[in-house]
Amino acid sequence: MAMSTDSVPALPDLSHLPHVVIIGGGFGGIAVAKGLAKKDVRVTIVDQHNFHTFSPLLYQVATAQLEPAEVAYPIRTIFGKSMNVNVRHAKVRGVDHARNVIHLENGKEMAYDHLVIATGASASYFGIPGASTYAMPLYSLADARKLRNRLLLALEEADAAAEESPMSLNFVIVGGGPTGVETSGALSELIRTVIRRDGLRIDPSRMRVLLVDMAPRLLTPFPEKASSYALKELEHMGVEIEFGRSVVEVEEHAIRFADGERLQVAAVIWAAGVTAGGSIADSLGGAPGPGGRVRVNTDLRLLESENIWAVGDAAAVPSGEGMFCPQLAPVAMQTGRHCAAQILRVENNEPTKPFTYKNKGIMATIGRHRAVATLPRGPVISGFLGWLAWLGLHLWYLVGFRNRLRVMMNWTWRYFDWPSGPRIIVADAETAD
Amino acid sequence: MAMSTDSVPALPDLSHLPHVVIIGGGFGGIAVAKGLAKKDVRVTIVDQHNFHTFSPLLYQVATAQLEPAEVAYPIRTIFGKSMNVNVRHAKVRGVDHARNVIHLENGKEMAYDHLVIATGASASYFGIPGASTYAMPLYSLADARKLRNRLLLALEEADAAAEESPMSLNFVIVGGGPTGVETSGALSELIRTVIRRDGLRIDPSRMRVLLVDMAPRLLTPFPEKASSYALKELEHMGVEIEFGRSVVEVEEHAIRFADGERLQVAAVIWAAGVTAGGSIADSLGGAPGPGGRVRVNTDLRLLESENIWAVGDAAAVPSGEGMFCPQLAPVAMQTGRHCAAQILRVENNEPTKPFTYKNKGIMATIGRHRAVATLPRGPVISGFLGWLAWLGLHLWYLVGFRNRLRVMMNWTWRYFDWPSGPRIIVADAETAD
Repeated sequence: MAMSTDSVPALPDLSHLPHVVIIGGGFGGIAVAKGLAKKDVRVTIVDQHNFHTFSPLLYQVATAQLEPAEVAYPIRTIFGKSMNVNVRHAKVRGVDHARNVIHLENGKEMAYDHLVIATGASASYFGIPGASTYAMPLYSLADARKLRNRLLLALEEADAAAEESPMSLNFVIVGGGPTGVETSGALSELIRTVIRRDGLRIDPSRMRVLLVDMAPRLLTPFPEKASSYALKELEHMGVEIEFGRSVVEVEEHAIRFADGERLQVAAVIWAAGVTAGGSIADSLGGAPGPGGRVRVNTDLRLLESENIWAVGDAAAVPSGEGMFCPQLAPVAMQTGRHCAAQILRVENNEPTKPFTYKNKGIMATIGRHRAVATLPRGPVISGFLGWLAWLGLHLWYLVGFRNRLRVMMNWTWRYFDWPSGPRIIVADAETAD
Repeated sequence: MAMSTDSVPALPDLSHLPHVVIIGGGFGGIAVAKGLAKKDVRVTIVDQHNFHTFSPLLYQVATAQLEPAEVAYPIRTIFGKSMNVNVRHAKVRGVDHARNVIHLENGKEMAYDHLVIATGASASYFGIPGASTYAMPLYSLADARKLRNRLLLALEEADAAAEESPMSLNFVIVGGGPTGVETSGALSELIRTVIRRDGLRIDPSRMRVLLVDMAPRLLTPFPEKASSYALKELEHMGVEIEFGRSVVEVEEHAIRFADGERLQVAAVIWAAGVTAGGSIADSLGGAPGPGGRVRVNTDLRLLESENIWAVGDAAAVPSGEGMFCPQLAPVAMQTGRHCAAQILRVENNEPTKPFTYKNKGIMATIGRHRAVATLPRGPVISGFLGWLAWLGLHLWYLVGFRNRLRVMMNWTWRYFDWPSGPRIIVADAETAD
């Protein structure tokens, strides 16, 4: 025997229990599994990553304020104490709902009694030429790392060029929602930090951070007051903001606008919107809902299914009067919890209940110590108080005590302006030796 | 103007000062630059990475105990307050010593008054077929991340296979020096951790960690007592150790030994030795020294040069009686400091002084709370006391207060056995979306 077996308990045989397969380990999928942990079902989360990503903080990874591991958490570790929840590290190709199996990319099948579609959403490029190839989205840890490398390498390049002739760099953020606002503010801070801290020979007046949106204001889901606050703060931080501008093409090193302007760019950050759908949704059949989402009944079951459910960004969840719930983390968590409860009700031969979304408000951070938050029918909280609210809420939801503490430490450091940050160019470690 | 220039001081013009170019930002190169910081020279560190790697802890990154960013530190940040030290993020192709320039891979040249070769060493495969392709070294951050992915993915695969038939996994470590001893102990712990914490359905008796060496004992540079202590501890941790075995071939999923045995493997970790050399050393001309190292005089200048120096693992530094200094971090740091002092002496028209190595002892850690350390002509310290000494020394040398604190927190956590670790499979974030 190679290794001692002491203190490794034998795993119980749960094969007699109904099998719930959850595709996706994001906010929605994790919430379903948490609701089913230690219940009389057997759960398998299937994800192409072995970690859960705390996506609201991806922009901080992209701007070198947090490390990838600070916003990622192994899914297995979340459920380490729940013997009935397992994880399969695999990509899903499609669903065969007639036979109640899913197809994995390695050619294997996995049978389910209940299937939960929690596959989330990805960037929507609205068919704009070049956007999917050259613009950089911010919806996965891989996206965030690629963007960080691009930003840091562009600044290194500008430093190296300084010996001959100074270089201008334009960074364009497309989309003035929370992601665009948070990323442009953080990027503006990153540039100032590397110049001041790391002594890069860059002329700040040649660094341009430009946020464009078709809409006439920032943060359209927020009240007007929040929008004007965000605008004022971003402009104070050196971000240029242009409304009513639409993008017609993205090239490798340039962006073209509908008004004919063509701008040389170091990077185009794509925060213009999301779409669900893809091969899994396609294999379910039926016409897709708005934004490629899977249409579900009010109990979160697919329109014509008894045992397939959808939650979070992947689901078109009715919110009454022909409207649908927004694609936000709180909706994913709430639908996940509801879905778990309904699966248990079905297994107990009880009727399912309809889902209702409890709007707890939305918030966005602007730079280091400012944020805007808005409560349903409540006031707009802005400035430092808003930032404290934002910080508390994000820490609260960040999975795992250890990650929470690490991120808090990082934030505390940044607050007191300590002289280091995780500005290592990670691609280096991948490609070179 | 796009961004405010307040609080960004103009950089002074230092172009009249002699230019010292240092190739490599490892222990040796950093020590040279530190010795020249704020002196009357202009320093450029050229490195293909923008970060310094604390290589003694790479095995902990490979075994998912530390994050990459915890052992890497941006070189610019180290010298953020030294206006005369700059960093060029670039690969060097060769040296034209007749014209006093180096060639960068992007086709550009960089002129120097003094050149320091601090390019380190890399794994030596001794011409064993397949070793450079399939065996996994542990000399760079990229190596460590690749190895971690391989290890974690192998364990995921074993878990997935458990539903059909249990799978056996062999991990072979080639080389019983400090790297081999530290890695095999940490790997054995990793396997036990993922089984216990993450609930992987793996039979520990089917997991084999095998350390092989041609020599008759572990840690040959240490006294016999340290070797037998390490052997006993590793065996206690479930590591199998086989002496007098030499490898004749490494295949994609197997290893072949001189005695004819062919073993299926999940990974071969290569810790058998290092070599210097490469295109930069070749372009210097002259016959290479032992292990491909650049031959230098006792003042660390190349045999036939007035202004090219070599330090650390890249240099064959005479230690008297035809012997050379070992390739260890303390030698790199000491030669780096010495080199800086001699460059300043040359610039002041003073004669150079010869380098002498001050042996401060060597140490290796075994598993979580044990280590062996040996002082020159002193006692062997082992066990928990040795581990405390090891921890103190590594924390002391770890660049930057923030990294030091983060690593200390991580170690404290592990010591008290907290339930999380950075076990995210990072390749996921690179390849998939």
